[in-house]
Amino acid sequence: MEMEDQIYAMRGNICFSRDKNHLEVVDKGYVVCDKGKSAGVFSQLPNCYLNIPCRDYSEALIIPGLIDLHVHAPQFAFRGLGMDLELLEWLNINAFPEEARFEDLEYAKKSYAIFTEALKKSATTRASVFATLHVEATQILMDLIEASGITALVGKVNMDRNSPDYLCEKSSVQSAADTRRWIKNTSEKYKNVKHILTPRFIPSCTDELMRELSLIQKEFNLPLQSHLSENLKEIAFVKELCPDIKFYGKAYENAGLFGGECRTIMAHCVYSTDEEIDLMKEKGVFVAHCPGSNINLASGIAPIRTYLDRDLFVGLGSDIAGGFSESIFRAMSDAIQVSKLYWRYIDPAVKPLTVDEAFYLGTKGGGAFFGKVGSFEAGYEFDAVVLDDRNLPHPQELNTKQRLERLIYISDGSNIISKYVSGNKVF
Amino acid sequence: MEMEDQIYAMRGNICFSRDKNHLEVVDKGYVVCDKGKSAGVFSQLPNCYLNIPCRDYSEALIIPGLIDLHVHAPQFAFRGLGMDLELLEWLNINAFPEEARFEDLEYAKKSYAIFTEALKKSATTRASVFATLHVEATQILMDLIEASGITALVGKVNMDRNSPDYLCEKSSVQSAADTRRWIKNTSEKYKNVKHILTPRFIPSCTDELMRELSLIQKEFNLPLQSHLSENLKEIAFVKELCPDIKFYGKAYENAGLFGGECRTIMAHCVYSTDEEIDLMKEKGVFVAHCPGSNINLASGIAPIRTYLDRDLFVGLGSDIAGGFSESIFRAMSDAIQVSKLYWRYIDPAVKPLTVDEAFYLGTKGGGAFFGKVGSFEAGYEFDAVVLDDRNLPHPQELNTKQRLERLIYISDGSNIISKYVSGNKVF
Repeated sequence: MEMEDQIYAMRGNICFSRDKNHLEVVDKGYVVCDKGKSAGVFSQLPNCYLNIPCRDYSEALIIPGLIDLHVHAPQFAFRGLGMDLELLEWLNINAFPEEARFEDLEYAKKSYAIFTEALKKSATTRASVFATLHVEATQILMDLIEASGITALVGKVNMDRNSPDYLCEKSSVQSAADTRRWIKNTSEKYKNVKHILTPRFIPSCTDELMRELSLIQKEFNLPLQSHLSENLKEIAFVKELCPDIKFYGKAYENAGLFGGECRTIMAHCVYSTDEEIDLMKEKGVFVAHCPGSNINLASGIAPIRTYLDRDLFVGLGSDIAGGFSESIFRAMSDAIQVSKLYWRYIDPAVKPLTVDEAFYLGTKGGGAFFGKVGSFEAGYEFDAVVLDDRNLPHPQELNTKQRLERLIYISDGSNIISKYVSGNKVF
Repeated sequence: MEMEDQIYAMRGNICFSRDKNHLEVVDKGYVVCDKGKSAGVFSQLPNCYLNIPCRDYSEALIIPGLIDLHVHAPQFAFRGLGMDLELLEWLNINAFPEEARFEDLEYAKKSYAIFTEALKKSATTRASVFATLHVEATQILMDLIEASGITALVGKVNMDRNSPDYLCEKSSVQSAADTRRWIKNTSEKYKNVKHILTPRFIPSCTDELMRELSLIQKEFNLPLQSHLSENLKEIAFVKELCPDIKFYGKAYENAGLFGGECRTIMAHCVYSTDEEIDLMKEKGVFVAHCPGSNINLASGIAPIRTYLDRDLFVGLGSDIAGGFSESIFRAMSDAIQVSKLYWRYIDPAVKPLTVDEAFYLGTKGGGAFFGKVGSFEAGYEFDAVVLDDRNLPHPQELNTKQRLERLIYISDGSNIISKYVSGNKVF
């Protein structure tokens, strides 16, 4: 990572979302970075900036960094493997045995280095990341992400029930103690990496553990990430474990861990009921939409149009390794695709997502969890990705919006030529 | 393209399908090419082959070339663009205006060169390709594909009704005359490129045109490709145009253009009725399953498990540009994904496709249309692709089958390091 000048401009074909319905395109425009934040996008450089350094990316596209609201770092090793299972079996057969390996710090270092390198090369600038229950391995992950230049929230996982002996915390007390130890070990240690509380999901967490986490949440004022209403069998299991709650999300809310003062990301929300949606809305809970994972584990299709219409906070997640791609471009394209099947097979009254909406979800939509992130409007963090599409030739003229659309669907790593986080160049 | 020795061996980790349920893996094995055909796969080289040249691909995977049973070459230019439409609107707004440009031979040359270069670099060794209605442009496409070393069936499109004035043949007589001219111009011209009759689909072809094509089919003994039961509005339109037929496929059969002596590929078959399926079975019609396209145009999900259970011939198609990717690996992964949503939302009695089945569909399943193609069993055409996955590191051990599975889901062009067609090296 290279530290940048305090103030500089970048020139190229600039695309960013103002809101979910408005993708802004400024051809051969300028975006100015002032002390790590955008000072705005201009078609001509204002006089006051005429003397600042300018990086000319010529015909390339410049877009805000992409946001991954849900990714399991230890599962990156088995992405694209063993997906012929539904969630609960998949956890037992694939995820838990792999996560158990992270007790071995050499293995953790090797695996997390591979994950972090892929994250670094991707178009993602910020991510909310699950580690495993292991304190030391989680610290290794945080060290690596900090060194990569990416900004991330990272969570040591909590799980003290319904988990195999080899990957289960002995008690809520131990889980809480480990969590405090992890927070203290890493407090003030990083510039770009912060803590996020990470109870795996209700089936893995006793009521006592949720109470402990609530105390920790208040003490350290931490955000929280977990899973919600992903799979029908999971939901039935939660109903069995918590017979008194009206809906799954209530189990988090009863512990004070569902939005409000506790800023919260809930991954999936494929089968959220009206009451659950109402509560997410009321509490400002973020939905991490993970369309690829929801197909691969045959979970279903989340009603994202409904969430957008109700003005819920929604972003995208790769959900490695329920999802097999770390690319948030792929998550955008998957989100559009599944919304078409939702329209075809579930509810013809619910219109498919547009490209503009999918781009918004993967930038400003998810970015809002990190503050003013995911756009180039003045005051936003200067997270930027530069895309070169010259290896995707075309015989006809294409405008910038069309080039972006095409990159969402067909780009791969070779198209990402530069990336900036808060004004610092990652590569 | 480089001409190969008459007989040689290749060494690597070899994967191929014997049938839809059996993926064979031979680690550090040998596949022998004798005069363009496989002489079999061996874990140790038999004595009789000890002195032949051997190319050692070391840790790489060697698989049969992939087969694209349905691709529109002129549409490659707009892949990943303008997919917020259903089939009939999408044709009018995207496909027809672009195809009309191929009257301009300079444009055709430029566009088809881009398509052919992408096809060459891909893992596809054989394809069945739609061109446009233009005779000269279609010849340019055939010239380019022949030069690339890929084997293909290429069709000049026939369409004489319900098409815009700028892309509609004036009469069935003119369409037939152009088709004969195209066949004669290019007869005996190519080694690897052959003709395939290509009535666009029933809505675009008058009964008179179908009769003309039937005569041409018999005269030249040509195979045929078209579209079938892709989209509900399309099917309703066919019903309106042909009120006397019991089902869509019957309109082809009435003209003698639905399997039997006329070897036929029908793309899509999303909504084929039991009777249509029975007729496809009876006539040996090949289904080109195009899962990506069927999502993008919100057509639906084809019941491929049903077709496999009934022992129909089924292969995969990229359906560029209803599909946005020319990769048949992507088609395999899409086929698995949509089969999971079929299970979830349409019929829980129909099990999702396995990785083995998807690999079979993209190799031997589609390959059967070209003869003994798509496997390494002795006597099969020696079409091979060499895959290097070293840029996809992993911390744990993976066996060859797992590496193949992962490549199906997450590989891109960078993993394809060599390709052979009928024993000739393409790159």
